This record gives sequence, C-alpha cells and structure tokens, in this order.
Amino acid sequence: MQESKIDKIEITDAFWLRYMELIRREMLPYQWKVLNDKEDIVIEKERDAAYIPSEKSHAIENFRIAAGLASGHHYGMVFQDSDVYKWLEAAAYSLRRVPDPALQEIADGVVDLIAAAQEDDGYLGTYFTIEAPQRKFKRLYQSHELYCAGHFIEAAVAYYQAVHSEKVLHTACRLADCIARHFGPEEGKIHGYDGHEEIELALFRLYGTTKDEKYLALGRFFLYARGQDPSFFWQQRAADPDKSVLIEGMEGFKPEYYQVHKPLLEQETAEGHAVRVTYMCTGMARLASLAGDEAMLAACRRLWKNIVDRRMYITGAIGSTVQGEAFTADYDLPNDTVYGETCASIGLIFFARAMLDNEMCAEYADVMERALYNTVLSGMAPDGKHFFYVNPLETVPEYSRKDPGKSHIKLTRPAWFGCACCPPNLARLLSSLDNYAYIVDGDTVCTLLYMESVGRFTIAGEEVRLTQKTDYPWGGRICLRVEAGGGQTFGIGLRIPGWAAQYEVSLNGRSCEGVLKDGFLVIRRCWRTGDEVILQLPMQARCWEASPAVRADINRLAVQRGPLVYCLEQADNGKDLQLIRVPENLPLTYRFCPDQFGGTGILQGTAFRRKAPAAKGLYSPWQEPVYEAQQITLIPYYCWGNRGENEMTVWMYKK
Amino acid sequence: MQESKIDKIEITDAFWLRYMELIRREMLPYQWKVLNDKEDIVIEKERDAAYIPSEKSHAIENFRIAAGLASGHHYGMVFQDSDVYKWLEAAAYSLRRVPDPALQEIADGVVDLIAAAQEDDGYLGTYFTIEAPQRKFKRLYQSHELYCAGHFIEAAVAYYQAVHSEKVLHTACRLADCIARHFGPEEGKIHGYDGHEEIELALFRLYGTTKDEKYLALGRFFLYARGQDPSFFWQQRAADPDKSVLIEGMEGFKPEYYQVHKPLLEQETAEGHAVRVTYMCTGMARLASLAGDEAMLAACRRLWKNIVDRRMYITGAIGSTVQGEAFTADYDLPNDTVYGETCASIGLIFFARAMLDNEMCAEYADVMERALYNTVLSGMAPDGKHFFYVNPLETVPEYSRKDPGKSHIKLTRPAWFGCACCPPNLARLLSSLDNYAYIVDGDTVCTLLYMESVGRFTIAGEEVRLTQKTDYPWGGRICLRVEAGGGQTFGIGLRIPGWAAQYEVSLNGRSCEGVLKDGFLVIRRCWRTGDEVILQLPMQARCWEASPAVRADINRLAVQRGPLVYCLEQADNGKDLQLIRVPENLPLTYRFCPDQFGGTGILQGTAFRRKAPAAKGLYSPWQEPVYEAQQITLIPYYCWGNRGENEMTVWMYKK
Repeated sequence: MQESKIDKIEITDAFWLRYMELIRREMLPYQWKVLNDKEDIVIEKERDAAYIPSEKSHAIENFRIAAGLASGHHYGMVFQDSDVYKWLEAAAYSLRRVPDPALQEIADGVVDLIAAAQEDDGYLGTYFTIEAPQRKFKRLYQSHELYCAGHFIEAAVAYYQAVHSEKVLHTACRLADCIARHFGPEEGKIHGYDGHEEIELALFRLYGTTKDEKYLALGRFFLYARGQDPSFFWQQRAADPDKSVLIEGMEGFKPEYYQVHKPLLEQETAEGHAVRVTYMCTGMARLASLAGDEAMLAACRRLWKNIVDRRMYITGAIGSTVQGEAFTADYDLPNDTVYGETCASIGLIFFARAMLDNEMCAEYADVMERALYNTVLSGMAPDGKHFFYVNPLETVPEYSRKDPGKSHIKLTRPAWFGCACCPPNLARLLSSLDNYAYIVDGDTVCTLLYMESVGRFTIAGEEVRLTQKTDYPWGGRICLRVEAGGGQTFGIGLRIPGWAAQYEVSLNGRSCEGVLKDGFLVIRRCWRTGDEVILQLPMQARCWEASPAVRADINRLAVQRGPLVYCLEQADNGKDLQLIRVPENLPLTYRFCPDQFGGTGILQGTAFRRKAPAAKGLYSPWQEPVYEAQQITLIPYYCWGNRGENEMTVWMYKK
Repeated sequence: MQESKIDKIEITDAFWLRYMELIRREMLPYQWKVLNDKEDIVIEKERDAAYIPSEKSHAIENFRIAAGLASGHHYGMVFQDSDVYKWLEAAAYSLRRVPDPALQEIADGVVDLIAAAQEDDGYLGTYFTIEAPQRKFKRLYQSHELYCAGHFIEAAVAYYQAVHSEKVLHTACRLADCIARHFGPEEGKIHGYDGHEEIELALFRLYGTTKDEKYLALGRFFLYARGQDPSFFWQQRAADPDKSVLIEGMEGFKPEYYQVHKPLLEQETAEGHAVRVTYMCTGMARLASLAGDEAMLAACRRLWKNIVDRRMYITGAIGSTVQGEAFTADYDLPNDTVYGETCASIGLIFFARAMLDNEMCAEYADVMERALYNTVLSGMAPDGKHFFYVNPLETVPEYSRKDPGKSHIKLTRPAWFGCACCPPNLARLLSSLDNYAYIVDGDTVCTLLYMESVGRFTIAGEEVRLTQKTDYPWGGRICLRVEAGGGQTFGIGLRIPGWAAQYEVSLNGRSCEGVLKDGFLVIRRCWRTGDEVILQLPMQARCWEASPAVRADINRLAVQRGPLVYCLEQADNGKDLQLIRVPENLPLTYRFCPDQFGGTGILQGTAFRRKAPAAKGLYSPWQEPVYEAQQITLIPYYCWGNRGENEMTVWMYKK
C-alpha cells in the first residue's frame, strides 16, 4: 500500500489564529524579555513556599555564564534551562507557520548560546556546569538533567524542522550521545533515569527525525528501567558525598511521586506528580507506536483509563493536591484545593495525541479537546502575558488568602512564576495546534480537533486537500470541502464528540450515513473535488453531572456547551455563589460577545438564590428553604479570573 | 449579702462515672506507664511530618535527668514536660473525687521529682535545664517555657486543693516568682510573652488560691503586652546568637499563628493556632471576671462570637486546617480536611466556662455541651487507651492514605502521639467535670451540664443541697430534688439547651412557670426540703442544617438527638456513604445498646441509596437519579472509628 500522511495543516480559524498570533506578536517577545530579565514584572511563587526562587528569571544569563560569556552564579530552579528550551520550541512552531526574520535571528542566537554552553563531551545543563560539575548525574531524583535535555531535544527537533538548522540538531545529537554514553543497561553505565520524565518522549522524537536506532533504544531503556529498583534514587542520594539538596521541599517525597514504585508495566494507577505521569505516558505511548510494543500499549491503556475514568476534572484538569502537585486517589476530586496544573493538562494532551498514533479512538481526542478548551486556555489571560499555574474549579478570595491549604489557589493570573514551567509550555502547545487537527490512519483521514483549516494530505500516494469551515467552538456546523482531483477512494472520519447527544451528517446537501467506529463516523467513497461533507453538532448548553462516586460534586451541576465548560463568577452573579441553586433543566440563552475576553460566548438564564434563613447561628434544625429568582450569567471556564479577585465556581448546586 | 458558692458536686451519673472510673482505673495508670516508657505501644505522629519525635515519651526521664538522678539528653518536644503536668492535674482531680493511696504515692513522687528538677532560682523546664540553659527565655515564640510553667501551676493548684500538698504549691510559687522576676513592664525585664498562651490562665488560678496580687498582675501583663509589638518574637529570634530552631516546621508561621498580630483588645476574629486562641481567651475571660475588666470582656465576646457563629463545626470542633492547626476564615469549614484538635475543643470548654463566670448566658454552656459530648468524647476510645488528636467529620480511608492533604485524618485512634498534648488533656477535663455541672450566680444556682449528682451549695449563707436524677444524654427527664431545711428563698436556674425546640417544667408534680433569661429558666421561690423540679427536654432525633454560608454543608443534613451529633459509619451502612440520601423528615427510631461502645444509643431509619447511573465515565449529562430504599444506622459521633478503618460522615446528603 502506498504511503498516507499529513503534508501540512494550515490553520485559518478565527478562534485559534487569535491565540497563535497573540503568541507570535505578544507572548514570545514578552517571554523573551522575561527570560532576559528585561521585563518589569513581579514574579510570583506558584504556592506559599519560602524556597521558590522568585527574584528574577536569569534563564538566559545562566547560559551566558555557562558559556563563559559572563561571570556569576546560576540562579533559579535547577531546571531553569527548560524555560529557554520551551520558548525555543514555541518559536520554532511559530516560524514554521509564519516566517519572521527578527524572531528567527533571536532564535538562532539562542541556538548559538546553547551550543556555546554545551561542554566538550556534549553535556548540557547550566546549573551543573556552573555550580556543581562534580555532581553530574549523581542526584537524578532532583537534578532534572535529563528532563532539561529532553526539552532541548524537543526544541531542537522542532527548530530543525522549522528552519532546517543543522546546528541545533547537531547540538541535540551530541547531548543525546553524551547521555547514551552514561546511561544504559551495559556494565559501567548508570542503570537509572531522571526523576522527571521527559527525555524518553524527546528521544523518540529525535529518533523520528534522525532515524538513529540508538535514540529509540535509549528511550526504551529509560522506560523499562524505571521502577525496576524503587530504591535507585535513594541509593544514589546515599552515595552522593555532597548532602545538600538541589530543590528544597522535596525530600519527603515517596517513590510514587517519581513513578518509580513499580516497573511501568505493573503500574495500574496514575500516581504522584501529575505532569511527570503524563510525560511518562506520552513516552510510553510513543514507544508503543514506534516499536509496536503491545505490552507498553496495554500499560498506557490502563493508566489512561485510570486518569480519565477516575482522576480527571470536568475541565480536563488533573492532579488533586498541591502537595507534590500530584494525583491522590480515585474520585478524590476536590474543587477548591485541586492543583490542576496547566502543564499537567498539556501533558494529558500529549499523551492523548500519542495514543491516537496507536489506536483510533475518539475518546483520546475528546479528552484532548476537554483539556485544551478548558484548563489549558484557562492557563493564560487574553493579553498573553499573564498565566495560571493552578486551575481550580471553585474559588473564594477570602479562603485563598486565609486558608493555607488553599494558598496555591490564585485568583488572578500572575505575570510569571518562580517555577515558570507553564507559560512557555502553553506557548509551545498552542503554536503547534496543527498537529492536533487531523490524523491519517491507513487510507482514512480523521478529524481530531475542529478548527478552520486547509489540510493537505497524501492518501495512498495521491494528493488530497480538505478545507474545513466552522465557527467552532461557538457554532456546531463543520463543513469539509474535498479536493481530490477527478476522484479517489478513501475514508473521511469525523470525530463525533462524546458530549454530542446526536448529530447530523450530509454529503453534498443530502443526508448521508457512515460507519461509526470508536467515536469516528467514517465515510468511505470515491471522493471528487467539490464534494462537501457537513457535520452538524448540537450546541445546546446542557447541565452535566459527575459520577456519584465523586463526593465533591454531589447534588451539583456543571454547564457545558459544545466543548466548553462554563462557570459562574461573582463579577456577574454577586457574592456567595453557593447560594445560587439551579434546576437540572436550567434554560439558558447563548449570546456571542465579541468584546469580552477576546470574543466569547456567554450563557444566561434564570436560576434561584437561597435567601438567608430565619434561624440565626451556624446550625439549626432543618427548615424549608426560601428562594428568589435570580438571573445568572455563565462564562466559559477559560475566561475566569480576568476581572480581579472574585468568587468562581464550575459546579453549581442543584435546587 | 451573704456568700453564695458551690461547696461540692459529687457526680453519680452512670454516663460520666464510667468515664471517670475509666480514667482512674485505666487511663491514669496507662498514661503513667507511657510517660515512663514502660508501655509496649507504637507512638504515632499526629500528621505526616518527619520532624515529629515518636520513638518514645521520655517525659519522666527528662525530669530525672534535669534533677541529676540520671544522665542523658532531653528527648521529645520542647514542651514534653507538659504531658507530666497534665497527668498530675488529672490525678489531682481523681484524688479529690476518690482517695487512692497508691495513686497519691505516685503523684507525690512526681511532685518530688518536679521539685528536684527545679533550679535554685525557681526556673523549671527540663529541655532548657538539660540542653540549653543559655537559651532560657530567648526564643519565646517556640520555647513553650511559660506554657509548660502554666501547666505546672494549674496542676499544682489542683493537687494542692485535692491533697493539701504545700510542697507542690510552694514549687509553683517559686516558679511563678521566677517568671515574675524576668517578665513585666519594668525596665530590665522582658516585655514579652510565650508563643503558646497558658501561663495567663494559670497565674489567675494561682492568684485564686494564694490571693497574691502579684500573680494577677503578671497574668494581666502577659495579656495586655501581647501583640503590642507584633515583631517581638522575630526581634528575639534575630537577637539569639544560636540560630537552631527549637521546633521544626514552624519557621514560616506568621504573627496571627501566635495571636500577636494585634493587641488582644483589637482582635476581632479568631486567628491562628486554635488551642492557643482558646487558652488565650480563657485567660482573658478569667481576668475579666477577677478584675472586672470590661474592655477585656468585650474582647472575649467578640472572639467568642466569631468562633461560635462562624468558625465552629456542629461537633464543637474548631480549627479548619492542619497547617498551623489553625482557624482559617469565616464559614470555611471543610469536613474532610478539618483539624478539629481534641485539645482545641477542650480549650473552647475552658473559655466557655470562664465566660459563665462573667455572665450567665446559656449559649456558653450549650457550646460547652456540644464540644464535650461530641469532639472531646470522640478524642478517646472506650478502653481509655487510644486517642484522636484530629476529629474529622468525614473520612474515606483511601483518601487518608493517598491524599497528603488528608494524611492527618486518622481512621482509628492511636495509642499515643509524638506530640501527646491531647490524651492527658482529656484526662484532666473529664476527671474535673464537677466544675461544669453547676454555677452559682448571686442567690441563684444554675444547672450547666446535666448529669446525676449530689450538689452542696451555700446560698446566701445557708446550706442547700440539690440531688439531680437523669438519664441524660439518653433521656431528657431531669429531676432536681431540693434539700433546704425548713424553707429558704433562692433561685434555681435550669439551662434550656439551644437544641431543645420546647420543654416542660413541673414543680412537685404541677406545671410551673419561671422566668426565661439568656437561656436559663429561673424559678425563684421559698424552697423546702422535698421540693422536686422536673425538666423534660424533647429527645426526638432531628435533622439539622448548617448556615448556607458554609459551602461544605450545602444540601446536607446532620442528625442530632439531645446534645449528641450522630454519624454514619461504613461498618453499619456499607461503603460509599455519599450514595446515601436522606429526606429532611427522616424518621428515626432510637434504641439504647448497652453492649456497644460502652453503652450507647443508636438511631435507625429508612433512607435511600443512589443507584449507579447508567452513564459510564466520570461526567455525563444530568439524568434523573434512581434510588433504592436503604436501612441506615446512625451512631453517636463520639463512637466513630472504633471498628477498624472505615468511612464515616456526619453530614449526609439530602435527597
């Protein structure tokens, strides 16, 4: 069979282009200034912990010092380098989409700087080069050396693909080769791995570009070695003559935090630091598809199922606790103490996308969509210069200020963080969304995320073009116009989102049937240029509920319209949002507001407000409550927190 | 007017005598062994923190070392001495009630040991005597020196009153005099106070016994000095050449934690460590009544109102967060992450009792009752040898194990704690309950807590005896039989509990009226021997609700019967207690079970269980839920956690 592949997806979508242009015009220049400490901002600690460095970024200066271009000490997290790498990766995607000589000049300079900071043996890592060369690879549970290496490799592959920089790829290969010399199953090498997964998925990406099997093997080694000896990190720590810690506040973490409590094939539940879990799973899923590793795929499915069926918020947020930024237990999904890190939902999207390369199942894309439109977008303000690290589902300003268990629940988006992982992660995901629009499976091209675009494909050796028109996520009509020369037989698979109770499909104006398989409606026929498929998804706002296993959401309803989860904010609905009670059939009117939050659709309707009871004091015998009608306004969850500190809730109480 | 006072209350109550005898026969001997490290038990950390010392108690050995009778180092918390003092105080109350030569011999030995550990200048504190004499009074925010001194003074007064030991009182006065030489408004003295309040209330107690105005003045000084300069502790810390901390994990605490953020008269809300707040307030209230300090009384009322109207659980638990064992914000009362320390509710009872000495208002006794019958009793197992530090209102075993934000929520009572404040505090409160049964106000004798007893009073110079018969808290009938010679005019005030929707009072078999004032029904007449007053309180179990300002309790009901709050446990009702739904008029049948939990009354009725929904996955469009009937059993909250690890909830979900 002849090759089928995606050649290029050009996004033309109003909703997403706004973000992509925001990143190109505002966010990337802004972040570049921040990394150079040239932006006049207050850097906030992402949670109340004295040890988080928040005076400056210093990320570029660290490279200059490591390269011998400046003198001084390393500043910031031991993984500060990764901020620069993620920025470079985002810049690469932006350059791939829109050439921009000024941006490329900066990026080329960054590549030069990174190469200059690289040591002769290929080692790259400014903290250890500057401060502790004798400690290289000796404290892997905290060092983030391979984590940073992975981010550089990802950036290098992206930048190489965008502007064909041989230098960046060469630098990355030298780094990967250095790692390969130190790690592996062979005697004399370290039979270990990084505390924070990332190198694995990056090595598979490097393999995808270089086709060098060494990288595939090394990534595979890291995954299969992980957790074989759950005491590896602590043995390393005991052997290190230098007892100073690299990151404070982490000494008490248990093996589960690092996903080293068991070999990966034996892990049945998602444990520990949520971002690490998703990066690990992304690596596992990539290995499964690259190497046809069925055992690894089965392990991926188990972890996926555990996350999605038991440990994920309706917004696609994951990580129920600030302590270790971690998963906790099945159905333990508190709305007001949740972590829901932006990076964790980004990682969940990576994982989902990697699973789609293994098996065409729309649930992966559904989760991708849920996480993207809700938690990931919540991670940034409309100005592209303010960001959430934590994405709660319920806020009360007084409680964030006074309850230390809620000190991580910020009410407005800070300009930057002491640990600045999320902002550049947002930039690299949102500027590479074309990777998430379609997938080709055999001779079928499937939609994943709906957005206006022009897609060019090779299907069974023949060129095919699909022009997608839609007003998604505001409208539910998706039109695919086919260009396939004089006629060509292949499949077009339309993802039917899990939230869609029904749908209609027409072909050239007539009702049309297809085969629904794993959430994709596949229409296979001889397509001709000018054929037009229209999918109509229902866009009525509806009340959703959580499984009754979720204690935090009992007797509560959330509103979803299309892929968007909505929320109540005090700014629209007054204080004490918990007094608002909604009927399960809450009638809501939709209105698009072009001037709000960069253009968004709001919902309005009539609910009830519980009046203050006659009884005084905290507790009283039950009395029939009294309600009054209240007009309520719901905004998309991703828009919350843009109007000063105020209450917000996703889950409303049922009347 | 001639003197009125309580002469002696002899408790004859089956419910409470069981506890008092348990303390005398089991708890005091057990705790004595623990303090001597002669009991084979596992000491647990009260929460997941590496720095909590939990290898042994060593409390008596610390005194032996300080006294020069043994060699070695201090072990345990810097305030480990207070465990011994609280034990001695409990022993004193027990000896006051029932002479016991064997116990008294041990207690006399403890007094000798304490006196031997006292330094020549009166200083007492084994940690500083053994380990750091140069650091005395230099780190008051952590040192607990005055806190420990306060506990010794309290024990000394109690022991002196019980067995007339001049030695113990002399030792206490020497200690208090030592403190008076170091602290006070005079130049050259420390214008400071302890991080943990306790010395204040103790000095007032010492003044009550010795009538030495110096102790009143010193206690007054500590209260009025507090918070005048919120930076006092940090100035002291900065001045201390030795930078090592005395207690780990506390360095980040803010002035509010210690109630030093403002002068006491300006504090409007209860902030910081809950036990400290209640001990501070107890001191304030005692000063108010001893010195007629109206400004201090007004401050007490403000703090009382804030706690009771906005920051207290239905069980009388206080302290919403484990971080700092502290209050958080108004109405922030999470059930599953609550701290609710046993000691804090004991402190709330102290505060309430001290307020009653200022003003006769039944709300104080109502709160005393709520805290006592629920959180305080929950603090110990029926065997008198296992204790809760934290008293949650909702538990899920899996979440306690896997959610670090719930690691302090223990599911069964440990035998002892690294910080062992609660067990001996329970012993001293429960063995002195006679102090909480009655109060005399002018020529009126009022009931506070209902329990069978023989009370001897002097009312306006004349002897009065009241014999109380009741089956409280199981039955609501309280009978007071008067002995007052041939006739004597005075008032008998009956507390009408806030939970009682109605009540009936009869005098010598006939309906009777009195004057209801601030929750006390006062009957004033010429009483004769043989007069009998019967108060009948309604004992129907009822569903209670929280103010809708409490987000955690919305759409939820709790059951209360008499003073007892009830709960559901998995042992009776199966797993997934959140699936149980109750109607607001839940009909419940009461049954006393003499063999359960040392004899208790249980409630049973028919509720509903939500059946698993048809929809799979975590989230789905709302569907009409399906229920099936379920028989439910409720046990008194204080009985929870005695049948292995299982789910428990106080607040049930409304159907």
